[in-house]
Amino acid sequence: MPNSFGTLFTITTWGESHGTAVGVVIDGCPPNLPLTIEEIQVELDRRRPGQSDIVTPRKESDTVEILSGLYEGRTTGTPISLLVRNADQRPGAYDEMVEKYRPSHADYTYQSKFGLRDPRGGGRSSARETVGRVAAGAIAKKILRMAGSVEIRAYLTQVHDIEMPPLQKFPTLAEVEASPVRCPDPLIAEQMIARIKEVRSQGDSVGGAIECRVRGMPVGLGEPVFDRLEADLAKAMLSLPATKGFEVGSGFAGSRMKGSEHNDPFEMRDGQVHTTSNRSGGVQGGISNGEELIFRTAFKPTATILQSQKTVNVKGENTELAARGRHDPCVVPRAVPIVEAMTALVLLDHWMRHLAQNRIFKF
Amino acid sequence: MPNSFGTLFTITTWGESHGTAVGVVIDGCPPNLPLTIEEIQVELDRRRPGQSDIVTPRKESDTVEILSGLYEGRTTGTPISLLVRNADQRPGAYDEMVEKYRPSHADYTYQSKFGLRDPRGGGRSSARETVGRVAAGAIAKKILRMAGSVEIRAYLTQVHDIEMPPLQKFPTLAEVEASPVRCPDPLIAEQMIARIKEVRSQGDSVGGAIECRVRGMPVGLGEPVFDRLEADLAKAMLSLPATKGFEVGSGFAGSRMKGSEHNDPFEMRDGQVHTTSNRSGGVQGGISNGEELIFRTAFKPTATILQSQKTVNVKGENTELAARGRHDPCVVPRAVPIVEAMTALVLLDHWMRHLAQNRIFKF
Amino acid sequence: MPNSFGTLFTITTWGESHGTAVGVVIDGCPPNLPLTIEEIQVELDRRRPGQSDIVTPRKESDTVEILSGLYEGRTTGTPISLLVRNADQRPGAYDEMVEKYRPSHADYTYQSKFGLRDPRGGGRSSARETVGRVAAGAIAKKILRMAGSVEIRAYLTQVHDIEMPPLQKFPTLAEVEASPVRCPDPLIAEQMIARIKEVRSQGDSVGGAIECRVRGMPVGLGEPVFDRLEADLAKAMLSLPATKGFEVGSGFAGSRMKGSEHNDPFEMRDGQVHTTSNRSGGVQGGISNGEELIFRTAFKPTATILQSQKTVNVKGENTELAARGRHDPCVVPRAVPIVEAMTALVLLDHWMRHLAQNRIFKF
Amino acid sequence: MPNSFGTLFTITTWGESHGTAVGVVIDGCPPNLPLTIEEIQVELDRRRPGQSDIVTPRKESDTVEILSGLYEGRTTGTPISLLVRNADQRPGAYDEMVEKYRPSHADYTYQSKFGLRDPRGGGRSSARETVGRVAAGAIAKKILRMAGSVEIRAYLTQVHDIEMPPLQKFPTLAEVEASPVRCPDPLIAEQMIARIKEVRSQGDSVGGAIECRVRGMPVGLGEPVFDRLEADLAKAMLSLPATKGFEVGSGFAGSRMKGSEHNDPFEMRDGQVHTTSNRSGGVQGGISNGEELIFRTAFKPTATILQSQKTVNVKGENTELAARGRHDPCVVPRAVPIVEAMTALVLLDHWMRHLAQNRIFKF
Repeated sequence: MPNSFGTLFTITTWGESHGTAVGVVIDGCPPNLPLTIEEIQVELDRRRPGQSDIVTPRKESDTVEILSGLYEGRTTGTPISLLVRNADQRPGAYDEMVEKYRPSHADYTYQSKFGLRDPRGGGRSSARETVGRVAAGAIAKKILRMAGSVEIRAYLTQVHDIEMPPLQKFPTLAEVEASPVRCPDPLIAEQMIARIKEVRSQGDSVGGAIECRVRGMPVGLGEPVFDRLEADLAKAMLSLPATKGFEVGSGFAGSRMKGSEHNDPFEMRDGQVHTTSNRSGGVQGGISNGEELIFRTAFKPTATILQSQKTVNVKGENTELAARGRHDPCVVPRAVPIVEAMTALVLLDHWMRHLAQNRIFKF
Repeated sequence: MPNSFGTLFTITTWGESHGTAVGVVIDGCPPNLPLTIEEIQVELDRRRPGQSDIVTPRKESDTVEILSGLYEGRTTGTPISLLVRNADQRPGAYDEMVEKYRPSHADYTYQSKFGLRDPRGGGRSSARETVGRVAAGAIAKKILRMAGSVEIRAYLTQVHDIEMPPLQKFPTLAEVEASPVRCPDPLIAEQMIARIKEVRSQGDSVGGAIECRVRGMPVGLGEPVFDRLEADLAKAMLSLPATKGFEVGSGFAGSRMKGSEHNDPFEMRDGQVHTTSNRSGGVQGGISNGEELIFRTAFKPTATILQSQKTVNVKGENTELAARGRHDPCVVPRAVPIVEAMTALVLLDHWMRHLAQNRIFKF
Repeated sequence: MPNSFGTLFTITTWGESHGTAVGVVIDGCPPNLPLTIEEIQVELDRRRPGQSDIVTPRKESDTVEILSGLYEGRTTGTPISLLVRNADQRPGAYDEMVEKYRPSHADYTYQSKFGLRDPRGGGRSSARETVGRVAAGAIAKKILRMAGSVEIRAYLTQVHDIEMPPLQKFPTLAEVEASPVRCPDPLIAEQMIARIKEVRSQGDSVGGAIECRVRGMPVGLGEPVFDRLEADLAKAMLSLPATKGFEVGSGFAGSRMKGSEHNDPFEMRDGQVHTTSNRSGGVQGGISNGEELIFRTAFKPTATILQSQKTVNVKGENTELAARGRHDPCVVPRAVPIVEAMTALVLLDHWMRHLAQNRIFKF
Repeated sequence: MPNSFGTLFTITTWGESHGTAVGVVIDGCPPNLPLTIEEIQVELDRRRPGQSDIVTPRKESDTVEILSGLYEGRTTGTPISLLVRNADQRPGAYDEMVEKYRPSHADYTYQSKFGLRDPRGGGRSSARETVGRVAAGAIAKKILRMAGSVEIRAYLTQVHDIEMPPLQKFPTLAEVEASPVRCPDPLIAEQMIARIKEVRSQGDSVGGAIECRVRGMPVGLGEPVFDRLEADLAKAMLSLPATKGFEVGSGFAGSRMKGSEHNDPFEMRDGQVHTTSNRSGGVQGGISNGEELIFRTAFKPTATILQSQKTVNVKGENTELAARGRHDPCVVPRAVPIVEAMTALVLLDHWMRHLAQNRIFKF
């Protein structure tokens, strides 16, 4: 089921950018969880278009409806179906795309794979699909908070070549949300915004990177050997549009170190086993060790640019294309809640899996 | 099934480092494939310990037995069970590990997750588990070659801070295997070997990176939206011991570029749609576009070092540990056939999935 | 994913009897299939309440909406989301159920399992859930017809103790639909209708049985060893509300025979291998042999009856309950399109699986 | 993965009747379970050939080896690999089968599906495959006993037309094992044995039926809507060789009743909700209600008979075949431990699934 994610807490997303609606079905949610529509809406509002002057002006309120799975304000353990209607469709804006493959977009590969495609706004390949992920992630986040004080925080560390120095402490949500670019360093955030506006004025775009940290991590999440925690996080991140890389803990820089520099010594602290450094990034042998989980995801520059580009058309002829229509000059700020949502889905699913095998039956 | 990988062509690995044997069950292999034990053994020989003077001297012939799934030299479509006996077990060498958690190993997390662990050589967390992956990957590789001239080549691009310049052409297997370090640049390979020997003499270890390229790629592999080709490759790589990062195409460097620099223009070439550059790395929208697939994986330095390190024991007391026993000062050269095997498994599984949905029933 | 069914052609159903809507997401549908909303609606009309005077008078038009997965009248290979609004909700009619467990219903088990339940019309345990199955099955049926002339026909063979004599030939759809009870034997059908009306007048209910036959069967469907064709059909049938038994071919009667009587001899006919009898019911070793597939499913009498019954309430007190509200005195006639839908889903999924492993790569 | 069964507690079986060995990999077993090889062997001994004079004389000690997943007598939470060597192979006995399809066997369907087959003793389609199921089931049974006093008892109720009267009480294991035919009614058992010997002397075979009862059932097992407990039991039973039918509780007879006769009234008993009758068979709405689970499985007569039968050969010519070699004149007595094993696997898996969703996180 290529449109499903998760093993015990699973989601199935559906919907196209300019179809009737997008949505998600959540299966396996624990029953009796108090849940309001506002708790889902607040996360969708962080993802929606038009929220600031550095993102796409497409007008979508992204109002979520709950169609099933709740009774008198509580989950019932049956599938939760969530739906968001698409409002601001301008199919005319995509006429040229019917004929021409947009460079570094999914037009050519969808056409080749399926033999046809919905060209309106990229159809299924549009990041609009992530609406369902964010809605489901809001529920996963709530369970993680209620069940174990697990707190997930993602934020921009880089836009183009502007990079934030390493963060000494776990940032608050307010610090991240203080700037529309979602970088908790206010001065760097200003530079990032300026760069985004600059490239937009050039009809161009930029990429960037998101770091995600999780504190309050339970020990033991991650299933050897294939479903290691970092393996499923890597898959979750690379399943997002525009991502090109993932690293956990020391990451690529760690591959340039010696073992004597890289290893994280253990020590007892407050009666608990801890490491004195965290180059492991919170996972060892594919399993969380209780330290802060930390990983980074790289996003390429938005493929849609207003400059003219060489491409081919569906008839197999060389041609040129200059995009019209609305787009994000940098997708990374709006990707922050999506990264958090996918992280929450991975952690909750793994927590349930871990407890199911290892804590239900005690011998 | 945390010890299984794949959807249509699936593998299930089992076995501990110093148990009786390690093995794999392959389910879903197409029938009628001619297969000899030698075709599997040759890949295991590339992975096995003791193959050169820069790897662990553990003596394992890694002789594979085929227990099921073949009849008169052909696969029958039923499960193929492969087994490799463990020979050179020295359980005494691991006595200290019973009591002490090795830093940056899986000892503490396995103990915490499961409540007990097999301490002999890391038990299930040992890279010895990958024997089954390589054996299964040998079959996947053969099918990819026979069915579509798909050729997979992995090689070292980096050891510690020694890095190979970008490779202009697709290297031959002979070029990679010419050096025990499996770097196709002979001069860099020599430097890498010297560095590995140097750190070994210090009782230390180093990390590195592997690049993997695939040519002869079919168009259309990768399932939107969660099972994108790069998402499943990322999971496959991060499921390997000691990996810390994954990037495809332009990767992290791509996140520092502008869209106008990063996009890959399309052009017609030899009657086919091609891109004039390959920053996408062969995937667009999660689906292969027929260009060369290219990705890199970062490996941390071997956690086992002979120097004394601070750690804690199972009673929760601070202590020190200096490893004895045999280990690889750099695991990356032996990881090359493993990376290739996992890549083959991902590609074959995705190819079968793609054709199953999109080419069986034509309307 | 307990609310999902299938491996390659998968469905996920959601929704409660008296919630906002019920629906289904179909993942893995081949692209380019021409599909109209009418083709789905026609099957829903066979299942919907109020279609005749022997079924529940609940008023539901069961009008289906297609929310995603189609573009210009063709499937795109992306998830197809279908939704049917619930119209005729009378929550007041279920007030007593909030307090009392209906005998032989799912009230007590849902309450015990989940800790709460949606009592309105049985919530998720209502057969209203099967709307999504029938909608998805309509698509599967169309593909089976287009791709291979596979024809599925279910019909009633028994209501209470009224039983149809064995059918000599494959009945037409018109013959089945000629009577609201969906028994192709007109005289027996009349008796069945009379019996249903009789028990309804007594405030009682009756059970019955459905036979399903499939002609035009491809050879080779069914995956040894666990996913045998009859095993997945048995699961599909026993996943329907009110089912108590399943048998294929000779079934329970076959267990009273000798091998010399039961075996189906092979013979060549029209250049094809055929059996001269069909006690196997079209499957041998879990795999279809090309003969007619034939199986039967037993349905218990409707649990909702108007007579007073002993039961307990949610406080754990003995009490009595007499149902009010609308119900089917015999669910079996409306189950016919549901049995066909589930059969279509099993066959299509198995066909795709069979071809994926055995026909894509030829050696 | 057609050779895997289960969701959280999963098994993957492999091996052919006359290959090197048969085996199973168990994934998801809770750690810390004390386990001896004898506990597995005792169940295999109930299944093995040659155990009495009414079963096949094939000589197999079916000695099990544990290859992984245990450390110092306890499970470690990693895959448990079990292997049984095939000893008494007489490939020559099957020469004729290479050319001719045995009626009502899997020869023709395997050949058609896969394009080739291992003809030695039926290869993968042989009931020898169930060795792995029984071995894994022994572990599941032990967990069920330790965790909840769940007791599973299967026994013959019918051979040919000899049928045992309904059993008033839950039989002991000793009562079942008192006779080689595994019918707890001693007089009926004698008749069954006589019948089996009689048909064997005629070169013929007979079918029969097994009833399985489970007491100590937890409430809440079964996942709406597709993975109902009875749906997964039905699949488990129909996945066994030679099975033709399944019914739970009232079964097919229940379909001939009225609701007023069939419904199971609830009453409070010992402070617990109970039903006063058990036509539901222990499941309501697909979920266990705590009453005894009861279901029956029908087995066809052994397809291998010594009498000459009409058939076709692989060249597509009409011919005749009279089996030689060793076979069971009635497979049902040896199927008893297999039915118990599959039941244990279904129940344990469902128990883990139920608790994982509904008892881990409490709100």
